[in-house]
Amino acid sequence: MDLERSPLALPFPDMPQIAGVTLRVARARYKNWDRCDLTYAELAEGTSVAGVFTQSACASSEVELGRQNVAQGVARAQIVNAGNSNAFTGYRGREAVEQIMGQVADHLGCPAEQVFVSSTGVIGVPLPKDKAREGVAAALTADPCTWEDAALAISTTDTFAKGAHTNAMIGDKRVELVGFIKGSGMIAPDMATMLGYIFTDAAITPAFLQEILSAANTATFSCITVDGDTSTSDTVMAFATGKAGNGVLTGFDSPGADAFAAALTDLCRQLAQLVVRDGEGARKFISIFVSGAFSDESARRVGLSIANSPLVKTAIAGEDANWGRVVMAVGKAGEPADRDKLSIGFGGVWAAKNGLPCADYDEGPVAAHLKGRDIDITVDLGMGDGRATVWTCDLTHGYISINGDYRS
Amino acid sequence: MDLERSPLALPFPDMPQIAGVTLRVARARYKNWDRCDLTYAELAEGTSVAGVFTQSACASSEVELGRQNVAQGVARAQIVNAGNSNAFTGYRGREAVEQIMGQVADHLGCPAEQVFVSSTGVIGVPLPKDKAREGVAAALTADPCTWEDAALAISTTDTFAKGAHTNAMIGDKRVELVGFIKGSGMIAPDMATMLGYIFTDAAITPAFLQEILSAANTATFSCITVDGDTSTSDTVMAFATGKAGNGVLTGFDSPGADAFAAALTDLCRQLAQLVVRDGEGARKFISIFVSGAFSDESARRVGLSIANSPLVKTAIAGEDANWGRVVMAVGKAGEPADRDKLSIGFGGVWAAKNGLPCADYDEGPVAAHLKGRDIDITVDLGMGDGRATVWTCDLTHGYISINGDYRS
Repeated sequence: MDLERSPLALPFPDMPQIAGVTLRVARARYKNWDRCDLTYAELAEGTSVAGVFTQSACASSEVELGRQNVAQGVARAQIVNAGNSNAFTGYRGREAVEQIMGQVADHLGCPAEQVFVSSTGVIGVPLPKDKAREGVAAALTADPCTWEDAALAISTTDTFAKGAHTNAMIGDKRVELVGFIKGSGMIAPDMATMLGYIFTDAAITPAFLQEILSAANTATFSCITVDGDTSTSDTVMAFATGKAGNGVLTGFDSPGADAFAAALTDLCRQLAQLVVRDGEGARKFISIFVSGAFSDESARRVGLSIANSPLVKTAIAGEDANWGRVVMAVGKAGEPADRDKLSIGFGGVWAAKNGLPCADYDEGPVAAHLKGRDIDITVDLGMGDGRATVWTCDLTHGYISINGDYRS
Repeated sequence: MDLERSPLALPFPDMPQIAGVTLRVARARYKNWDRCDLTYAELAEGTSVAGVFTQSACASSEVELGRQNVAQGVARAQIVNAGNSNAFTGYRGREAVEQIMGQVADHLGCPAEQVFVSSTGVIGVPLPKDKAREGVAAALTADPCTWEDAALAISTTDTFAKGAHTNAMIGDKRVELVGFIKGSGMIAPDMATMLGYIFTDAAITPAFLQEILSAANTATFSCITVDGDTSTSDTVMAFATGKAGNGVLTGFDSPGADAFAAALTDLCRQLAQLVVRDGEGARKFISIFVSGAFSDESARRVGLSIANSPLVKTAIAGEDANWGRVVMAVGKAGEPADRDKLSIGFGGVWAAKNGLPCADYDEGPVAAHLKGRDIDITVDLGMGDGRATVWTCDLTHGYISINGDYRS
């Protein structure tokens, strides 16, 4: 099935090189397609690594090994297989991952635990070891490629390549942060997301990199949803090569640490939003601003309840300011809420305030707002200071067609 | 929008009269339609009442007052308004409910707290008091009508009238149990469901009626979902007129209590399944059998995670035995699970066992099963003795059309 490019797609940005990172791609032919589907990122010695992973109880061997090995803090390589998630494949799946780790480690002369592997695609088919071996061999010796080549090679049902970058000043050193990501369905990360890779030339300890990645994740990847279906393979990795020459960041007391953490969070937010922009069948990008909640976490849960509601998502698809469905989604969230303190608005116009429809509600500007591509929903719970922003897309016939009209 | 009758519809059964129950319907014209939309069930003096209600934090005044008044245990009347849920309408909505309660109580010469009111339809528009007053007046004096007339009058987007009945022997007395229900979207009851009404001529105390209704609810209405969206108005009421002449049931020690509880549970299961059969856009009725869970409640949550997964529901719509999506839904449920003990089957054929695809998996009979109307998914977690059955429908273009293609 050929998928149309998402109407919410953004062009791939012109992203800087990161000293200490070399990308290569190859054809492992995990599916019957003629495109690169194996990506190899080679990392300079001494690269710090951090990662966040799916909370699924049925996580893949890639996730299990990644979570285990990220603890030692150093990475020399990242391999990504596209077309087969290798999830729910038992010992055979695990052997395939260990084979790849060994093959790359032999090539680099490093311990296998410094080689990270991700896989994405169909669940329940063991990754074929022969294709993996040949694909890795080809990738190890391929010519270096661009960020966009790598972003395309890790994609599956994605309709556009997704990358973002930013920078930060640490003392007088400018450090670059670059990331690419894939994902469009089975998106409801809970403390993690689809496959995302972040590279920086900053010098930073693994422990502090993990601390700020985890914090950024809570406010970004954990605040997006396409369909409420959390994947078995969600992974975001961050690699810091240390080539920028800044004083090593060891904690928030280090000069420049706040700026770096803010830049990393900004990069994560950009990447997370790109995934929503490629949500299966998406025609509209929806931002849900929740305030007045009992806590920030409560606000996030209320926001996700709205963002995951098929009735809210189909209403937005139909350009219908059906705020009653937002009330319903707040009510079912299982979080503290009081009907008579709840206010709801679209595009900056309040439709209901303090539990009652607004007497002077003018549907004209709201109707115009809903015809656009970017939809804002504002919810104030009137209970406390908790706030969160959640991003999602609408639910259209496209989602049904992509997931129901053909055999996978 | 004219909705096609669900392909999963069942004919309305021939249901017996219940001594002590008289039904009447009228046109309140809550919407611009020419059909009865106000239902009045008059109940004999001394009728026991029990109810279960939505857990929504944004419940309607009808739900608030019903939950409060059911505690006194006696009912003389039930009014149902269709076309306007009166939810999220503040003090004006509450005034309309209190007006109806007072009007019916004056007519019957009973306390207002013995009059129960439900409303279903659009959220956020106060129920118009003038239409309610005229509609109630017309209903109070209308000729008695049939169960099917009442089932039609309480419906909104339903495509067929839904009723069920059964009976039980209490000593040498046969008691009849009859119910009708409405609902097709915004269905994900959590300890309650859409609007459902159960009538019996059994003699039973209100407290024991509530006990067995609550227990039945856990295994029936709380085990169905159409779209994961819990309504603001979900209500199931049970009324027992006591006219059958059986010895009053006061607890499970009473002779015949087990038989009556089993019959009530059976009736609730029939009614719950009818709602799924009218799920918006439904083409297939899906039963999900979960065993081997840590507890029954854990099994129910795993079942609902599968039943609410848009990726599972679209796969079934596409007649695709995509058991990887079932793995995903088990993994995200947040319940104890072990990938390497998980087994999944369709139509009685195991596709995966103990965390691995079955080597001898024959897709032929599974493909044939998936072409049918009734789909069985079996999941064994291999952890404990907990089990549950959950019912849902597939997710099709019809759901998107009903909820997204037109303005509400």
